[in-house]
Amino acid sequence: MPFWSEFSHIGIQKAADNTSVVVMVTGALEAHGTHLPLATDAILPTYLAEKVAEKTKALVLPTIPFGDSWDFNKFEGTISIDPQVLTEFYKSVMIGVFKNRFRYLIVLNGHGGNIPALKIAAKSATEKGEHVVIIVNWWKDLAKSARELVQETPGGHAAEDETSEVMHVRPDLVHLSKAVAHRVVTKFDIISGSYREELLPSAMYGDPRKATEEKGRLIMEQAEEELIALINELEQGRLPLTKE
Amino acid sequence: MPFWSEFSHIGIQKAADNTSVVVMVTGALEAHGTHLPLATDAILPTYLAEKVAEKTKALVLPTIPFGDSWDFNKFEGTISIDPQVLTEFYKSVMIGVFKNRFRYLIVLNGHGGNIPALKIAAKSATEKGEHVVIIVNWWKDLAKSARELVQETPGGHAAEDETSEVMHVRPDLVHLSKAVAHRVVTKFDIISGSYREELLPSAMYGDPRKATEEKGRLIMEQAEEELIALINELEQGRLPLTKE
Amino acid sequence: MPFWSEFSHIGIQKAADNTSVVVMVTGALEAHGTHLPLATDAILPTYLAEKVAEKTKALVLPTIPFGDSWDFNKFEGTISIDPQVLTEFYKSVMIGVFKNRFRYLIVLNGHGGNIPALKIAAKSATEKGEHVVIIVNWWKDLAKSARELVQETPGGHAAEDETSEVMHVRPDLVHLSKAVAHRVVTKFDIISGSYREELLPSAMYGDPRKATEEKGRLIMEQAEEELIALINELEQGRLPLTKE
Amino acid sequence: MPFWSEFSHIGIQKAADNTSVVVMVTGALEAHGTHLPLATDAILPTYLAEKVAEKTKALVLPTIPFGDSWDFNKFEGTISIDPQVLTEFYKSVMIGVFKNRFRYLIVLNGHGGNIPALKIAAKSATEKGEHVVIIVNWWKDLAKSARELVQETPGGHAAEDETSEVMHVRPDLVHLSKAVAHRVVTKFDIISGSYREELLPSAMYGDPRKATEEKGRLIMEQAEEELIALINELEQGRLPLTKE
Amino acid sequence: MPFWSEFSHIGIQKAADNTSVVVMVTGALEAHGTHLPLATDAILPTYLAEKVAEKTKALVLPTIPFGDSWDFNKFEGTISIDPQVLTEFYKSVMIGVFKNRFRYLIVLNGHGGNIPALKIAAKSATEKGEHVVIIVNWWKDLAKSARELVQETPGGHAAEDETSEVMHVRPDLVHLSKAVAHRVVTKFDIISGSYREELLPSAMYGDPRKATEEKGRLIMEQAEEELIALINELEQGRLPLTKE
Amino acid sequence: MPFWSEFSHIGIQKAADNTSVVVMVTGALEAHGTHLPLATDAILPTYLAEKVAEKTKALVLPTIPFGDSWDFNKFEGTISIDPQVLTEFYKSVMIGVFKNRFRYLIVLNGHGGNIPALKIAAKSATEKGEHVVIIVNWWKDLAKSARELVQETPGGHAAEDETSEVMHVRPDLVHLSKAVAHRVVTKFDIISGSYREELLPSAMYGDPRKATEEKGRLIMEQAEEELIALINELEQGRLPLTKE
Repeated sequence: MPFWSEFSHIGIQKAADNTSVVVMVTGALEAHGTHLPLATDAILPTYLAEKVAEKTKALVLPTIPFGDSWDFNKFEGTISIDPQVLTEFYKSVMIGVFKNRFRYLIVLNGHGGNIPALKIAAKSATEKGEHVVIIVNWWKDLAKSARELVQETPGGHAAEDETSEVMHVRPDLVHLSKAVAHRVVTKFDIISGSYREELLPSAMYGDPRKATEEKGRLIMEQAEEELIALINELEQGRLPLTKE
Repeated sequence: MPFWSEFSHIGIQKAADNTSVVVMVTGALEAHGTHLPLATDAILPTYLAEKVAEKTKALVLPTIPFGDSWDFNKFEGTISIDPQVLTEFYKSVMIGVFKNRFRYLIVLNGHGGNIPALKIAAKSATEKGEHVVIIVNWWKDLAKSARELVQETPGGHAAEDETSEVMHVRPDLVHLSKAVAHRVVTKFDIISGSYREELLPSAMYGDPRKATEEKGRLIMEQAEEELIALINELEQGRLPLTKE
Repeated sequence: MPFWSEFSHIGIQKAADNTSVVVMVTGALEAHGTHLPLATDAILPTYLAEKVAEKTKALVLPTIPFGDSWDFNKFEGTISIDPQVLTEFYKSVMIGVFKNRFRYLIVLNGHGGNIPALKIAAKSATEKGEHVVIIVNWWKDLAKSARELVQETPGGHAAEDETSEVMHVRPDLVHLSKAVAHRVVTKFDIISGSYREELLPSAMYGDPRKATEEKGRLIMEQAEEELIALINELEQGRLPLTKE
Repeated sequence: MPFWSEFSHIGIQKAADNTSVVVMVTGALEAHGTHLPLATDAILPTYLAEKVAEKTKALVLPTIPFGDSWDFNKFEGTISIDPQVLTEFYKSVMIGVFKNRFRYLIVLNGHGGNIPALKIAAKSATEKGEHVVIIVNWWKDLAKSARELVQETPGGHAAEDETSEVMHVRPDLVHLSKAVAHRVVTKFDIISGSYREELLPSAMYGDPRKATEEKGRLIMEQAEEELIALINELEQGRLPLTKE
Repeated sequence: MPFWSEFSHIGIQKAADNTSVVVMVTGALEAHGTHLPLATDAILPTYLAEKVAEKTKALVLPTIPFGDSWDFNKFEGTISIDPQVLTEFYKSVMIGVFKNRFRYLIVLNGHGGNIPALKIAAKSATEKGEHVVIIVNWWKDLAKSARELVQETPGGHAAEDETSEVMHVRPDLVHLSKAVAHRVVTKFDIISGSYREELLPSAMYGDPRKATEEKGRLIMEQAEEELIALINELEQGRLPLTKE
Repeated sequence: MPFWSEFSHIGIQKAADNTSVVVMVTGALEAHGTHLPLATDAILPTYLAEKVAEKTKALVLPTIPFGDSWDFNKFEGTISIDPQVLTEFYKSVMIGVFKNRFRYLIVLNGHGGNIPALKIAAKSATEKGEHVVIIVNWWKDLAKSARELVQETPGGHAAEDETSEVMHVRPDLVHLSKAVAHRVVTKFDIISGSYREELLPSAMYGDPRKATEEKGRLIMEQAEEELIALINELEQGRLPLTKE
């Protein structure tokens, strides 16, 4: 039962004797097409973290359900945290973890918009001491080969891949009949408050219509395996790197 | 099913047509004696909010699981957000809610340490526009008469009342046999980093030994009723006040 | 003559040899009904501090005359400091005091709106070192029995109690003939920029019409005594607490 | 009686009908040689402001008793506000004044260390609207000819001029027998935390030994006259400038 | 001559009539192996911008020579700006540009560490109004085919590609004989203050030994062409995107 | 070749063995009359710094081309950095320099508006350690006697002195035929967003019409000499001060 939040302060001391790895889960609350729940980016990494909590000794923190969703802030239902505030919030959590004798903090991140804040926070939180933050942007860093195998259309926001994943994890929240496809591809990173709805029409980037529960299952299973492998590597004091 | 996070961005538009009330749940992750889980202050208001979600049309936001736990920061397992960062985070969420056509935001707060941040955030978030934040510090604002009726010892942090409540909501996480009693009463508000463990020995303020599930049930049921009454009042455009 | 500000830097060194207690006075500049001066919340704690300066060795700092008066910011004459700025300002003063060899800092606070900022500042300023901040919200923490004895109506903002106190301390600034009574009682903490004038009509909370100088004198005398008792306790290294 | 703080919120409305000028007084609490009080930089402009309050309709705000005293922060008794916090505090006060229908804000500044913060605050506070901040660094902008006439040694921190002024205003706080002279002259602005005591030995810059009450009186009288002239000019809507 | 800085304020008005595009150049000052100058990440985009200034009407801003170089901060010579400060600095420049009637701001970025700050700044600066920021991370967004053609080893920090480019632009500053090769490949984003020198040994990521001036020339020429094409597209009001 | 930016990280280590002095150059991008380039305040100190780089071992940092130009922000072409952001940016650079074993940092400042930010940054950056910041506001601290000799009209913004200097350094950027003269003299420091164009008409303060290249040459030559003298003094461990 390695959910950090469920231990008493005595219990956490014992748990900390058995692991050096903590998993921080970062989500978002933002429009995901017309067919996926607003919490999609929190639901998926939380599911993965729960799987991991069953199978390793790494401690899983409660999910941070809000993120930087500026890109979707014009779509109703989106609640976006100012990125500089989000940075400081992440930093506070990271410092709090490292205060507690742990060495490795895996950020299991479910949302692209959080990346700048996570990077800046991690630099500051590890500035001193022997601490390491590993940011796992799970939708692109994990399950690469499974994705390649199952996807018939390119991955993206509320696209075939993500839709399949939610169909596996929370089928009750998917309204596939309402799904529409849009994909505006840009050559460079275009940032513009007034073009948000044009760059991401219907809060979509991709084509969800070929999504199936089975595709989602295959992706999630591989992601789970890889995440457990990473934790095991860290428990043995090895960073996931190779020197060329 | 009024959990904000479960709607799609189309779904939230319809939901917003039917209510003007949103519930924001603010918790903490901090030492609660030797017998209660670290997430106690998140578990209890989340439970209340879920009950409310079943019985009203008010939309319930995902719980913010970390708070200002400076008082308990020397006890292992506590993760505390810097209060000025927490203020800004709350403000970002509040502004995000009011951007979405809602008028009333009930903050269902589970943790005393969050109050300064909540107050400051609410002032700023309601500075403009016709918006109202109502801070419900549920452990002291709700179920007053039930508490009076059932409590044999004074309420407090991980005390008889709170222990009973967790026994009702998450009995699996209570280790009553490990409970100890401490109560350091101060005449004034004493704030001191170096006296934290002396002011709150064993992360306790009160006596949990007379806690029972039944006491918890009675408190939670009354709290739930009063919260629903408040929501109904707000839905009719009435603030909970009387002019003398 | 223990006013910090009146010593030379040589003089303060000697004074610091004789006491470990400093008194910081925090006021506000805000509308107080139609009959009391804007500086009411500075005048009263300053008066108490001056009394204390005559009778103990504790050093009294110059009063900070502005505070967080957001609640009254729509009434002319109110000048309100942004609460996050106020927090940092208080923190700077507290750190400056503790840099000077003192151990105990009593904040003699005259204004409810300052409490969140004072709490947050004190946490940060005492994070390291053997320092203690004691926040005395004098209008509710001191002279409780005197208040109970003399008040015919409930206490409050510009109410019977506060009006009596100013009548005792600065009778020339009270226009009792212009006093009006209003009292909007709320069940929960309601924060709303647009309802400020409705929640506190005429910048009032209470009934000042039964105020007398004599009532004020009795309250102030008891407050003074209790404050001196607290200082004496601290000079002997005892915090105002009891372990139950 | 034009002290802002002494009016009720009704009274300030009438006062505001009769003037467009407000005086904000900014001091400091810092070591001033071995013979002058720590509050010197607050005492002198406060005295001037009180004189002005008697003779014009301009409204005088309560003195801000702390400033940026970084240069003297190694001398006991000095309490210094972080300059970025001080900037925000000043800005909050300025915005509060301009919210109240006034057009001209004279900052009667008693302390050189406050100038950067005042300049930055004033830019921000006047960014919008028809408002003007006029910073009067009284010890160099006022009474120039009187100073030239009476001074036998160069002016400076706790020097002949300042000492004379305090002798006129608060003779009880001057310990002339303890005065020492030091003057470290630099070609450029040297800023260095570790050289502070070397750059300003004994917290002195100048020679206070020829100070007399009479010299102080002459300076203060001229300063008062010039300040009143400035206020009168502003009341007629004229800025103190000439076009060449 | 479209360098913004060389125009008078009259001249810039005319220049602004002829273009809607501004180029902001963001560099860094950080260790680049043992053979490249610290300013490498400023030198290369500045060179490109100068080329563009000759051939289009877009206005080129002066290069910001410092960036977020946290990763290399343990190597002597690196000067790193705190990322949150850098964010605000970029934001100030962007807002200043958009205040001046321009619509499109191309950020010609020379340094990976700046990306989080640039993204956050651009969101805020374009929140209101019809403005667009396009971030061109030139070393990966431009000249892709030329790179593919000429590179014999993978690109990277002070690697074959970057070394070739500096050999083309500033051959006098390259000490190829001192070049060493290192490449630590990580599976995930690892951020750790204490592992910085291990993750980037000798401030290197790649193999510079096959670098030639000719390779650099080919890359720079293609980059220049593509940048000019982007500017021309923007001048015609077209964003670089395709709708699928 | 002592430009910091041109060294490799190995090279800078050797350079640091030979000097303890670094020169930081701070400019601005703002309207300078109708005849001078927007970069005037960067061009002049950069020129001086380059001269110094040829003749001493002090290391010259790349110029920071933007500053606080609030006063001219209503004139097209001006880009102004928020002063509080600028303060933090300067602080980051200063801390980066002192991290690199240097002791003395000369700020060669070309712009009056930067002074508050520089002062505040320097206090913080030198708070700890044996570091010294020397702010040289070159247009008033250097070449005083040359200025006195050559100037026929008072110095100022885009005035005779500054115009002559740019004529010496970058004659191609001066449009003397377009020059106009304005000089609004104020008795006190007047700060007002809405009066900016009135206080500095045509972005001018002074009369540029008598400017000549020769006058500029004489000023720059003396400035250069004095700056070299200062560096030499510092290299020998002497601060530019005299004790009286």
